[in-house]
Amino acid sequence: MNAPLDTAVDVKAYMHTMGRSARAAARALARSGTAAKDLALMSMAAAIRARSGELLAANRRDLEQARAGGEDAAFIDRLALDANSVEAMALGLEDIAALPDPVGAITGLQRRPSGIEVGRMRVPLGVIGIIYESRPNVTADAAGLCIKAGNACILRGGSEALASNQAIAQCVGAGLAAAGLPESAVQLVQTTERAAVGELISMPEYVDIIVPRGGKGLIERLARESRIPMIKHLEGVCHVYIDDAADPDMAVRIADNAKTQRYGTCNTMETLLVAAPVAAAVLPRIAAVYAAKGVEMRGDDAACRLIPGAKPASEDDWNAEYLAPIVAIRVVQGIDAAIEHIGKYGSQHTDAIVTQDEARAGRFLREVDSSSVLVNASTRFADGFEYGLGAEIGISTDKLHARGPVGLEGLTTQKFVVLGHGEVR
Amino acid sequence: MNAPLDTAVDVKAYMHTMGRSARAAARALARSGTAAKDLALMSMAAAIRARSGELLAANRRDLEQARAGGEDAAFIDRLALDANSVEAMALGLEDIAALPDPVGAITGLQRRPSGIEVGRMRVPLGVIGIIYESRPNVTADAAGLCIKAGNACILRGGSEALASNQAIAQCVGAGLAAAGLPESAVQLVQTTERAAVGELISMPEYVDIIVPRGGKGLIERLARESRIPMIKHLEGVCHVYIDDAADPDMAVRIADNAKTQRYGTCNTMETLLVAAPVAAAVLPRIAAVYAAKGVEMRGDDAACRLIPGAKPASEDDWNAEYLAPIVAIRVVQGIDAAIEHIGKYGSQHTDAIVTQDEARAGRFLREVDSSSVLVNASTRFADGFEYGLGAEIGISTDKLHARGPVGLEGLTTQKFVVLGHGEVR
Repeated sequence: MNAPLDTAVDVKAYMHTMGRSARAAARALARSGTAAKDLALMSMAAAIRARSGELLAANRRDLEQARAGGEDAAFIDRLALDANSVEAMALGLEDIAALPDPVGAITGLQRRPSGIEVGRMRVPLGVIGIIYESRPNVTADAAGLCIKAGNACILRGGSEALASNQAIAQCVGAGLAAAGLPESAVQLVQTTERAAVGELISMPEYVDIIVPRGGKGLIERLARESRIPMIKHLEGVCHVYIDDAADPDMAVRIADNAKTQRYGTCNTMETLLVAAPVAAAVLPRIAAVYAAKGVEMRGDDAACRLIPGAKPASEDDWNAEYLAPIVAIRVVQGIDAAIEHIGKYGSQHTDAIVTQDEARAGRFLREVDSSSVLVNASTRFADGFEYGLGAEIGISTDKLHARGPVGLEGLTTQKFVVLGHGEVR
Repeated sequence: MNAPLDTAVDVKAYMHTMGRSARAAARALARSGTAAKDLALMSMAAAIRARSGELLAANRRDLEQARAGGEDAAFIDRLALDANSVEAMALGLEDIAALPDPVGAITGLQRRPSGIEVGRMRVPLGVIGIIYESRPNVTADAAGLCIKAGNACILRGGSEALASNQAIAQCVGAGLAAAGLPESAVQLVQTTERAAVGELISMPEYVDIIVPRGGKGLIERLARESRIPMIKHLEGVCHVYIDDAADPDMAVRIADNAKTQRYGTCNTMETLLVAAPVAAAVLPRIAAVYAAKGVEMRGDDAACRLIPGAKPASEDDWNAEYLAPIVAIRVVQGIDAAIEHIGKYGSQHTDAIVTQDEARAGRFLREVDSSSVLVNASTRFADGFEYGLGAEIGISTDKLHARGPVGLEGLTTQKFVVLGHGEVR
């Protein structure tokens, strides 16, 4: 494993040394075959299982410090590892090993009138910088995805998880070494100095892509300051629109699941839109479900008239990502008004329509400009595992490059390859 | 056509008004079908032909001002239109109309264990801001590509071409109107105030992507200041490596063409690398061709010993994008040294190997991390038309999203679509 920050060395020099090592490791990794990468992943999993005692001991040290620092229960929950979550990390790495290697294939080869054959080859992005918060399992997941896609990475986890992350990174390094790959393919920023993040996003000569994971405020700040392109996730103000041609039972089931299956995830529905002609039939049923689960309802006038106990919604509610048992509810004239509402207030993350009308489903799919658009399914499906990507490094709300859940393919790029026979122009 | 800047309105308000109109037009364009978009393109071409007299008169006014302002012959050449270049603009728009519509198709639909079907739909990016210099034909080309891909655009051409660009934009607007599409789908920034560019790259609420076209200095500055993602082209320090397993005649032909077919293009070779075992056999032949064409040669010691009249190359020469009849020449040990040189000094644009050895060709393709990598063909082929993309908005040296020549597909993105039957998690 790479060295921690020596107090005699400044942060900039420390980060630049990591950057240079990462660049060199990326070249080696881009050359390495699937077998070596998969062996590294399997060896990392084995090391994590073999050293689970050390991992948990390191995690206990982090937890003690966090409790002493007065962190709240939710924070402690995200930071804590146990035997199950350690095993889940090992299984996650084995799952990534089992995924097809995205790198190296040439596709779409076509002969041009000039005689040259032109195609595209999928290749690694290079060096990926990942900035995340307190969950230590990200260290193993992110390292695994980057390695499989042929990238080196520099990981900067939350300061509070440093001991846990160091212990996991030791296992990752052991796995790389067992496969004959450079250990500097995965490096951990081993300092809690905040300036390290500033350096990481300012070294385009060493880092090709930044993947920030965290709250909206952190990511907005990083996006403003970064000199390196990002694959990022800002927020999920997700909608379900119940059309007047919806199956009522399906509408109730989806509105329930999209809001209440988990409150804190980015693909949880925050605003429910209901077509006026069916509002009286479905809204009271949905409201009863929410009331039973303790979900606070904030509606427009029409919704409040149909829902006993609903509070009036303000303009802020249409923009809100609650991440909590609160839902905004609006009665709209029909699909045009629904699409307009989503275009105005949505975050282009994930939006769903419930309808039996195929033409309207088609319009919603085409005209709602979000990374995931669903027909007759819960917004909660917007997820790399549910989509079959095998794993995800995050969900992108950007439009360039990767949009929506980002798996191995999103950690690669394509170059043009030309096979000629001496052709000139 | 949109209005010019009124002196009573400030630049920020002017640009924001354009941005709002563009956002609304983008929604309409995303909904419009292939037939309407193609009719608009054909009508633009017809308008350009019908009004060619007005176009040329406007261009004469720009030329007079540019000459009076002391612009040099190369500048005047880029600015000037004639009957042929006007016809080429019209033909270019008709060619774009004939390309397949990239938008709307759902691909890769797969049923997941949960029951949902997941696929991807190709959709427009939204609003594209294009910043370019003095060539007026970019106004027609860029508008055509954006419209076909379903995007609205805001065009900011060089101040010196304003009258020409206004005349072309009138024709573009007439074509949009003839097809029933909003004229604000293509808007021209009609002020020479430099602050307009600053506003254009600072309105992420209205503009999704910036495509800057121009010199490296301009683009570096825009990239530093932009708050909006860019598809950009920095520089082309392109290489040809003549391997010791090269066919000597082919090597001479490709080294000649890659350097001399055109000197000022980004895919022109700037550095020639030659494997030591064949240097004595091929370098004098190549040097004779260059000498006959007046190409200045700057070599390392080994190259200078083989080339009469070659000057010694300095470290700067390996980094240089000459865009001129100058070539840097280096004798290297073999393919490893060639790949290392390209990794150290290249700009990840376009690099070629000449070899009859398939294993080395494969290594070069995989290990050279450039947007285009060629085997036995001239670097001059790295071009959207030569690659069969139909047309190009530029060549990207970025790694995210579009890499290499960017055609219609690069002006679109993909969203996930989910077809469900009431599934919940």
